[in-house]
Amino acid sequence: MTPDWIAVDWGTSNLRVWAMQGDQVLAHSASDEGMSKLAAQDFEPALLRLIAGWLGAGVMPVIACGMVGSRQGWREVPYRAVPCAPVQAGALAAVATLDPRISVQIVAGLKQSAPADVMRGEETQIAGALAGLSGFDGVFCLPGTHSKWVGIAQGQVAGFRSFITGELFALLAEHSVLRHGLSGEGWDDAGFEQGVTEAFAAPLAGTAALFGLRAEGLLTGLASAAARARLSGLLIGAELVSARDFWANRPVVLIGAKTLSGLYAQALGLQGIDCQSFDATACTLAGLSAARLG
Amino acid sequence: MTPDWIAVDWGTSNLRVWAMQGDQVLAHSASDEGMSKLAAQDFEPALLRLIAGWLGAGVMPVIACGMVGSRQGWREVPYRAVPCAPVQAGALAAVATLDPRISVQIVAGLKQSAPADVMRGEETQIAGALAGLSGFDGVFCLPGTHSKWVGIAQGQVAGFRSFITGELFALLAEHSVLRHGLSGEGWDDAGFEQGVTEAFAAPLAGTAALFGLRAEGLLTGLASAAARARLSGLLIGAELVSARDFWANRPVVLIGAKTLSGLYAQALGLQGIDCQSFDATACTLAGLSAARLG
Repeated sequence: MTPDWIAVDWGTSNLRVWAMQGDQVLAHSASDEGMSKLAAQDFEPALLRLIAGWLGAGVMPVIACGMVGSRQGWREVPYRAVPCAPVQAGALAAVATLDPRISVQIVAGLKQSAPADVMRGEETQIAGALAGLSGFDGVFCLPGTHSKWVGIAQGQVAGFRSFITGELFALLAEHSVLRHGLSGEGWDDAGFEQGVTEAFAAPLAGTAALFGLRAEGLLTGLASAAARARLSGLLIGAELVSARDFWANRPVVLIGAKTLSGLYAQALGLQGIDCQSFDATACTLAGLSAARLG
Repeated sequence: MTPDWIAVDWGTSNLRVWAMQGDQVLAHSASDEGMSKLAAQDFEPALLRLIAGWLGAGVMPVIACGMVGSRQGWREVPYRAVPCAPVQAGALAAVATLDPRISVQIVAGLKQSAPADVMRGEETQIAGALAGLSGFDGVFCLPGTHSKWVGIAQGQVAGFRSFITGELFALLAEHSVLRHGLSGEGWDDAGFEQGVTEAFAAPLAGTAALFGLRAEGLLTGLASAAARARLSGLLIGAELVSARDFWANRPVVLIGAKTLSGLYAQALGLQGIDCQSFDATACTLAGLSAARLG
């Protein structure tokens, strides 16, 4: 079978491509040539290295989302302002290529002026999730390096809020004084729930709760698996406290990788909130497909 | 003049020594041979490299405080439990040396069991500050990498709380997505006050306020000097919100370096709190002197 288009998720750190026929995946490939490693002229060769084998005699449509459309990307695509549909028919931005066999278009990211916020890539996942949820009115949570809470009303993104929870966890675990007590790979589920509960019980404790993990390690020998899970619980719990106006009293759908979405579902469950979980990659592909068909 | 003792502040990153006669400084030296760069057998040579010229025929008393007394230090000195005097007469820990010309003693750090917390080095600054404040009943704030709020009652440390504010600022400014908008060296005082005010107005905003700095940089060209100062204001403001039970309705004395103490004084001033400021090095020397005399 021959692909009739190519789907591309081009983030800061990675490039992922799929050979598509309609909404069916024929083949998949990936590399670590993310936006942060490439200058403007490097994008086309990086893409061709992965997709050359899928090209034939005609012109292949390529639909891309993510940081590829940022100022440091292949071409800067202006943000669209919320409230708006996550992806707009006919609003893709074309990129000039040297190779005549490809026709590349990039999905625009979204911006919010007050409070200031931006997304690139998540709008495509949101469009993909909405394609499978007729008449959805509620909230999407997209956990990750910079997790997003997104209010949906009448098929549009009404507003959103970003948290640097994932990035903060990595910085603290790898570079801060806490790293001494977090080494290894284990996970203590009770520690995670303790962290979430602590974040809700003392929402103004601030970074004293983080230093407390180090102090417990020194004074009582807190195990690294418990400390790492509790740090995760404290940070995800703090995000939930801050995002309460999003998830309280509305249906919540998680869009993310399985393990991380599972932690968010567990933390929300402790607050009595049930939620659905959608796979992030499936949503990306559905969203790119919707963007292509406009 | 010949020194009659040597004062040593030995932290994670730096070693600082003073040749003392009574409470007078005769000479000063320093190196970057902090605790984190040394194995147990390296401490004595690192010290002798700085003080050899001050030694004479007799045995020179050396009084040290800081991370030199930690598990990764020269000798692990057990913490003393609060409530207690910041430095206890006769409770210094002797270290065996190869060189017979020095007699080294280390000041013990303090621990608190619930909530778990620890300090090493600050107890000496507190003792030094108390030596100049007869009958002080109130709060010390020691801003820094891991800032401390310390309640004092009847000459004792009643309790304390540590925040990783300074470390978090450095991690975010140097390693996070925010670094793109924080380059350069300028400072915007109005931005700092805006950050403090924002932290008090929306104490549960969490890391969404941090991502907002990045978004404003992208959407409205927020200047790096304003972004850096606002980040500092947000983090110091969040610490003040968390530590309100310490500084509300009690005299506050700052112990720290001039610039950082100035920021804390400015932020407390926005809440209507006046405070005194003591120089950290002067407090360290006064505290080591008090520890020596017991």
